[in-house]
Amino acid sequence: MSDTLLLVLDLAGIAVFASTGALVGVRKELDVFGVTVLALITGLGGGVLRDVLIGSVPPAALEDWRYLVVPAATALAVFVFHPAFGRMERQIMVLDAVGLALFCVTGAVKADEAGLNVLAASVLGTLSGIGGGMLRDVVAGRVPVIFRGELYATPAFAGAFVATVVHHEGYSEWWYALAFAVC
Amino acid sequence: MSDTLLLVLDLAGIAVFASTGALVGVRKELDVFGVTVLALITGLGGGVLRDVLIGSVPPAALEDWRYLVVPAATALAVFVFHPAFGRMERQIMVLDAVGLALFCVTGAVKADEAGLNVLAASVLGTLSGIGGGMLRDVVAGRVPVIFRGELYATPAFAGAFVATVVHHEGYSEWWYALAFAVC
Amino acid sequence: MSDTLLLVLDLAGIAVFASTGALVGVRKELDVFGVTVLALITGLGGGVLRDVLIGSVPPAALEDWRYLVVPAATALAVFVFHPAFGRMERQIMVLDAVGLALFCVTGAVKADEAGLNVLAASVLGTLSGIGGGMLRDVVAGRVPVIFRGELYATPAFAGAFVATVVHHEGYSEWWYALAFAVC
Repeated sequence: MSDTLLLVLDLAGIAVFASTGALVGVRKELDVFGVTVLALITGLGGGVLRDVLIGSVPPAALEDWRYLVVPAATALAVFVFHPAFGRMERQIMVLDAVGLALFCVTGAVKADEAGLNVLAASVLGTLSGIGGGMLRDVVAGRVPVIFRGELYATPAFAGAFVATVVHHEGYSEWWYALAFAVC
Repeated sequence: MSDTLLLVLDLAGIAVFASTGALVGVRKELDVFGVTVLALITGLGGGVLRDVLIGSVPPAALEDWRYLVVPAATALAVFVFHPAFGRMERQIMVLDAVGLALFCVTGAVKADEAGLNVLAASVLGTLSGIGGGMLRDVVAGRVPVIFRGELYATPAFAGAFVATVVHHEGYSEWWYALAFAVC
Repeated sequence: MSDTLLLVLDLAGIAVFASTGALVGVRKELDVFGVTVLALITGLGGGVLRDVLIGSVPPAALEDWRYLVVPAATALAVFVFHPAFGRMERQIMVLDAVGLALFCVTGAVKADEAGLNVLAASVLGTLSGIGGGMLRDVVAGRVPVIFRGELYATPAFAGAFVATVVHHEGYSEWWYALAFAVC
């Protein structure tokens, strides 16, 4: 995949994740700064955890200013227009699942490139996808969404595993679509 | 100590820690994936925190697939046979204390080898031992067990301290038994 | 600024942060070890997070034994004399704000020296200042203080931003006073 397309997809996923964090913050009646902090944690948390664990520091989120501006701008938009965002909750949930799938795949590929074994890369891919939401819920004092019994994380791990194997074995890029679909 | 023996002890400790995490997950009525995530966090959390803090990344838990398979298999076993594991709670608590002692000693030795001062190595050894349970409780929304006033962490720190001094000064391996006993 | 002055200020800030953590621990009726753990997390957490994220490991807090002795001694003092510390709560809050300002500035400078962009350095400076209190509240099961709507974190970020720009552009040291005042 071209680097530009990957960057755009990555930033889009971060924006969606950040909007879920900002919505939680608005519902907890946080001020604008609290909403922004929660949006940054949700949007960037998974990727930062992955980068710290593979020793790729400073994490990508701190190397490129766009990774900070996008979730911060999303937080401000949600803070100002939250009734509109609140009504779009179903659409955001769908986008959230798409973002999760995307992050699982890209996270697993990045971990595989760092030389981890297939199982570890799949775990790190899953962590890239679910880490931000988990941190959001822990910091906001909620039970993490992945623990609420909905089918959410199992396909994430399955997709990350497929992506790792695909990347590791050097199969065609089209297989990523399968990993993505599994997610 | 031989490396093989250390690895077996390490994996045994991780399995015990993971089983306490899985039991908490089962009691919170998590699905099988949630139980596995909680078991992984509990079994591997302390060692991963230590490795990240001494800059040994990727952490050992991600370098060797056995470190992932053992807690995951433990989680599945607890999920399927949890009434049996529930009845063994007292035995698990004893094993948990043994695992804590073991991790404090091995964690302190690893931190000392990374060149930290004696005090810092003792703190990191203690973190290796108590970190997984602390993360388990924070993620599961419980008051961390080390904060519940039972005599749990003080001997852990004492043992880690003894182990560090023993290792640092190059004393005979038999002294580790003392550190372990103190824990 | 001279290194010695910076070290003294840094340790003073850590002592103040640690005392807020120890007070929370005493109010939760933790034993002496729990109080010490909470004080260490509060005093050192922000700086450790920053150091891990810029890849400066082992973190400063583990390289120099004074960074461990100061918060531990503070915790013991609070544990023994907590009625006196409890009466000084207002003074501690003022000192806490001063410590926050200090950590935002020094954290932002350290992140800028690590080669981060201005925005990322400001975010990391803010994290250095608010990270310890955030970890304290998450571990102790409270809503993080930065989410409680008081004007606390916005000036922290503003100050960190000013400090980064000042340092990045090589302006006179006197400008740090401005960054500090903004905090």
